[in-house]
Amino acid sequence: MSTVAEHYPIDCPFCNIANAYLPDPASPIPSSPDPAKVDPQCHLILSTPYVLGFLDILPIAPGHILLTTRRHYRTLIDLHKATSTTAQDWASRRAAEESLETSRALGEWLPRVSQALCKVTGIEDWNVVQNNGERAAQVVPHIHFHLIPRYQEGRRENAGKGKVDVGMLKSWRMFGRGAREELDDEEGAEIAAELREALQEVIQGTESVGPKL
Amino acid sequence: MSTVAEHYPIDCPFCNIANAYLPDPASPIPSSPDPAKVDPQCHLILSTPYVLGFLDILPIAPGHILLTTRRHYRTLIDLHKATSTTAQDWASRRAAEESLETSRALGEWLPRVSQALCKVTGIEDWNVVQNNGERAAQVVPHIHFHLIPRYQEGRRENAGKGKVDVGMLKSWRMFGRGAREELDDEEGAEIAAELREALQEVIQGTESVGPKL
Repeated sequence: MSTVAEHYPIDCPFCNIANAYLPDPASPIPSSPDPAKVDPQCHLILSTPYVLGFLDILPIAPGHILLTTRRHYRTLIDLHKATSTTAQDWASRRAAEESLETSRALGEWLPRVSQALCKVTGIEDWNVVQNNGERAAQVVPHIHFHLIPRYQEGRRENAGKGKVDVGMLKSWRMFGRGAREELDDEEGAEIAAELREALQEVIQGTESVGPKL
Repeated sequence: MSTVAEHYPIDCPFCNIANAYLPDPASPIPSSPDPAKVDPQCHLILSTPYVLGFLDILPIAPGHILLTTRRHYRTLIDLHKATSTTAQDWASRRAAEESLETSRALGEWLPRVSQALCKVTGIEDWNVVQNNGERAAQVVPHIHFHLIPRYQEGRRENAGKGKVDVGMLKSWRMFGRGAREELDDEEGAEIAAELREALQEVIQGTESVGPKL
């Protein structure tokens, strides 16, 4: 039997977020989600039946986004195993289908979220990083892809609405090393609102080419 | 009009690989591809209508794999734009569908290739990294995801057939910095053959849990 605790393991912060922000059948982009539904606050930009997107609370650079799975998988291996069950009962088949849809959704949303990130921050260079296991610098044991903008140091590149605090910019540092400052909730709320607006344009196919001026 | 040159830009090494190794309708896993079809040699492990997988010729660690798109897209933004054309002609609609299928295929194959990588190398920790743009350390301007095993230093963790030369192991170094040694073609051919065998088991759903002993 499938239980809520199985789907949302206690003490997994990303399961807490998935549990707090259920998908809205009307749209994958939440209209004005309350950041204080979880602690620390969550600046949500995407919530589908398979994946969620929100700001990293310890950004390496302003606009640092996480794309995660709604269901709990520790690593891509766990996701693979969940897609490849040989069990024939209904619940197992359904979990396998959901896992395969989750894989596809990760692939579908990485380019869309990238587009929103570039539009809002004005950057043209970014890294996508997904760590599996402690030796690979995975901290939260729930699959997540980092989208990390790479700003040109010392140059104000933000062509968005000026909400990104370039003072936060630091040189690129390796994961798990170097300082990462906590996200300011007010700033996070502003960036997330811009990202949701940009994502809305992305899914409506109405976005203009290049960053907003 | 769509041309071969448009699909496979001259001087793009990954387009050369895509052009040299067309998909086999019988299986996504090539049976015994000739590495010398391209120069430098390509140690291919996966070839579908949408994505290809092969060994990095400058591995950060033994077993370092690249998962790339068959069609040429420089970054995830280019992939997004290709999925979201508003043009209604047949060729444009088809290119958009192909691009969306490519996004999904990337999401589908990352967990499967990860499973094969872990089985062959015996590792349990690995990074997935996809760089967009020069400032993000992208070298080849054609979307590719790195799958990089993280071995525990100084410990022989390879539980596979012992083909992985642990002498190659070095401490983790940041992309674009530090030394990366050229892949030895004989070693590459052996690792790729093991990876193809593991991937074959993955897609047949016959793989056992954990690394081979």
